Amino acid sequence: MSRFSCRLAGLAVLALALLPASLPANERVISAEASDPQTMGWMEGFPPPADKLVMQPESDFFGFPKLRWTVCHLRELLPTEVVSRGLGAPEPLDYALDEEAIDALTFTPLGREREMTWQQSLSANYTDGVLILHRGKVVYERYFGCLDEAGKHGAMSMTKSLTGLLAEILVAEGKLDDQTLVATIIPELADSGFGDATVRQVMDMTTALSFSEDYSDPTADIWTYSVAASPLPKPEGYEGPDGYFEYLQTVEASGAHGEAFGYRTVNSDVLGWIVSRVSGKEVTELLSERIWSRMGAEQDAYMTVDAKGTPFAGGGLSAGLRDLGRIGLLMLNEGTINGRRLFSGTGRGRHPGRWRPSRLCQGGVHDPAGGSYRSMWWVLHNEHGAFAARGVHGQTIYVDPSAAMVLVRFASFPAAKNAPIDPTSLPAYQAVADYLRTK
Amino acid sequence: MSRFSCRLAGLAVLALALLPASLPANERVISAEASDPQTMGWMEGFPPPADKLVMQPESDFFGFPKLRWTVCHLRELLPTEVVSRGLGAPEPLDYALDEEAIDALTFTPLGREREMTWQQSLSANYTDGVLILHRGKVVYERYFGCLDEAGKHGAMSMTKSLTGLLAEILVAEGKLDDQTLVATIIPELADSGFGDATVRQVMDMTTALSFSEDYSDPTADIWTYSVAASPLPKPEGYEGPDGYFEYLQTVEASGAHGEAFGYRTVNSDVLGWIVSRVSGKEVTELLSERIWSRMGAEQDAYMTVDAKGTPFAGGGLSAGLRDLGRIGLLMLNEGTINGRRLFSGTGRGRHPGRWRPSRLCQGGVHDPAGGSYRSMWWVLHNEHGAFAARGVHGQTIYVDPSAAMVLVRFASFPAAKNAPIDPTSLPAYQAVADYLRTK
Repeated sequence: MSRFSCRLAGLAVLALALLPASLPANERVISAEASDPQTMGWMEGFPPPADKLVMQPESDFFGFPKLRWTVCHLRELLPTEVVSRGLGAPEPLDYALDEEAIDALTFTPLGREREMTWQQSLSANYTDGVLILHRGKVVYERYFGCLDEAGKHGAMSMTKSLTGLLAEILVAEGKLDDQTLVATIIPELADSGFGDATVRQVMDMTTALSFSEDYSDPTADIWTYSVAASPLPKPEGYEGPDGYFEYLQTVEASGAHGEAFGYRTVNSDVLGWIVSRVSGKEVTELLSERIWSRMGAEQDAYMTVDAKGTPFAGGGLSAGLRDLGRIGLLMLNEGTINGRRLFSGTGRGRHPGRWRPSRLCQGGVHDPAGGSYRSMWWVLHNEHGAFAARGVHGQTIYVDPSAAMVLVRFASFPAAKNAPIDPTSLPAYQAVADYLRTK
Repeated sequence: MSRFSCRLAGLAVLALALLPASLPANERVISAEASDPQTMGWMEGFPPPADKLVMQPESDFFGFPKLRWTVCHLRELLPTEVVSRGLGAPEPLDYALDEEAIDALTFTPLGREREMTWQQSLSANYTDGVLILHRGKVVYERYFGCLDEAGKHGAMSMTKSLTGLLAEILVAEGKLDDQTLVATIIPELADSGFGDATVRQVMDMTTALSFSEDYSDPTADIWTYSVAASPLPKPEGYEGPDGYFEYLQTVEASGAHGEAFGYRTVNSDVLGWIVSRVSGKEVTELLSERIWSRMGAEQDAYMTVDAKGTPFAGGGLSAGLRDLGRIGLLMLNEGTINGRRLFSGTGRGRHPGRWRPSRLCQGGVHDPAGGSYRSMWWVLHNEHGAFAARGVHGQTIYVDPSAAMVLVRFASFPAAKNAPIDPTSLPAYQAVADYLRTK
């Protein structure tokens, strides 16, 4: 396992890190405007016409362009558990809007020659919502597609970063030792590939597992995993694992843990299991108790669950845009929001100073292409010390400490992988950060 | 159709109106304390042991005693749609607690000789939560079983009363004429039994339909309806109707509309369809827009949906106890809460003064056993002018205008019908009202 300190790695890191850049030909042709769910008329009418129905599971509800409706309506298709904000009053964000100036900012997309404005990037990215905070105040906020300020959007793999945050909180409090072997905490995993990995290796995804997450391969493990995890009744005669916990026990090792980073969602589900076993609470409940009910959230969030009620710690969260802005502020400000400290990487725990959100890039595990992943947050190793939560189809919470900037974007880009969306995203974020640093 | 003005009808009205009083023998034996979901250990552990799982659909999740867990967790088993409270601050209820005095109140259960205290009635009724408001202030609030102040509980058929309220709001605004034939508004229902019924007949359930809601008869229509309405994939080879709207088109007439009251849930689903067609909004959306986002609600509510995203207007709502207290206050105070008028039966519409919540008992359609049902609210015709929303397993919003009292109870009584639960409920409510009238 190679660790390294902050270095200037440039914006290409994550764009290159995340696999195929190609889009199926039919997905290229429909623009953000033409694929707007309202324009498409998905689920409109009483009843919606047959060709406008988005149903689970037969209608390919997660395929583009239906995807653009589905990302705001996951609870209408799947069982879910609440992440409660509690019953108190929300604490509204402060505003210092500067939208005209930001819209006009220009940048050169990675690998291209012609400049683009920030405003142009929004439809290029199939943006559903974007919120930018500078020194704790909202400077930019826009909604498109299926989203509005009272809506919720699938966070996809950004869920992992919240699971990672919960684990770090437990580590800092001395309730979880990240050097413990997984089997010590979850004996059911002793015979699986996870058994002899440390919690830290799971947190940083340096476990060595036989698990293929190549969505383009119909025999990939990710599909067996999907069937196991589905909350819907299993197919007739199905005898495989039911639910996340049963599936995880079937994952085998492949090589030695700790030697290389490998992005596999099952690590997040194991971490969710660890967090629950150690805390005695579901991930949803702990997330509510430690974060959602204490950060002044405006909305409840929710997580999809398997048939046994286990929340999908690797990708099941849906939340409001502003509430993920609050998560970004917490990460930027070392666990503090609205003058209250919700968590801390320093002080009380057994690992003082080990994990400080704003210094993520001092830790981090080397990604083969140059990025790194620490406690389920991506570290960019750029000159700004930026780090991010990221999810398929363009989701991000992007934190730039040097610019005191938090940027949250929900999107429904046709392709899942971030590779084709990063070229018009990462340099755009950098341009906004550069602008905000001058203010 | 026989209408009649307020009269003294006594508390037996609804107890007698609501069918079989018998409980299966095995359901009698487990007390409220012994069947408490935490005592039973449903869904506890990571993962829960196999015999503690509550799963959809194979585990009989709505059977007693699992029911006592399920009523607080419907969204974890089924797809749902939010009824948004919006993003503002909740408006907390005022408190003037008087719990000791109320606990000690005594009453004689219907058909029995020995008195019981209010406090004793709570476990006799498998109460999950009870809230009593007097002159707008909370005088009593208790949680049991699966519920707490931040939880939500299935409202069951109380959902109908909210659908009825939405219809009344549209009538008062002149957007819906309750004398219109259903087929005029929903042409798809022209050939069904609903086609030549008036909206008012649907609202008061005086339609004459061939639809059996006898849950003890396995060939009853209610089961065909349940299969059609299920959001889960249909059984292999299923060719019947899919969803509420398709099913409703298959319901046939039986006799002449307007002659007798017949409690059939399908009326509420037709009314939901009418409300949506007229308003252009889903029931969830209209309920949020007109009520939930304007009454100072503490929590979002939600409704279960069919596979096409249609909310279950006849029974799908889950909500917080205090929020249903706010609904009761709105009904008691003619549409006013927190100094704001949210709706009105008088004034602007084409039917001034026609429907005033506190005068429900001046309208109402005669139930064969003596109660009446008006706009999907039960009217007791007692000397207090009380009216109520009611749902299976003991749910109620009970409004007593003469005592300025609103009482909300969530419960998970073993039997569905209210007949066995009313004897220890209706006289208990009356006792509390009598006490509050003296204050």
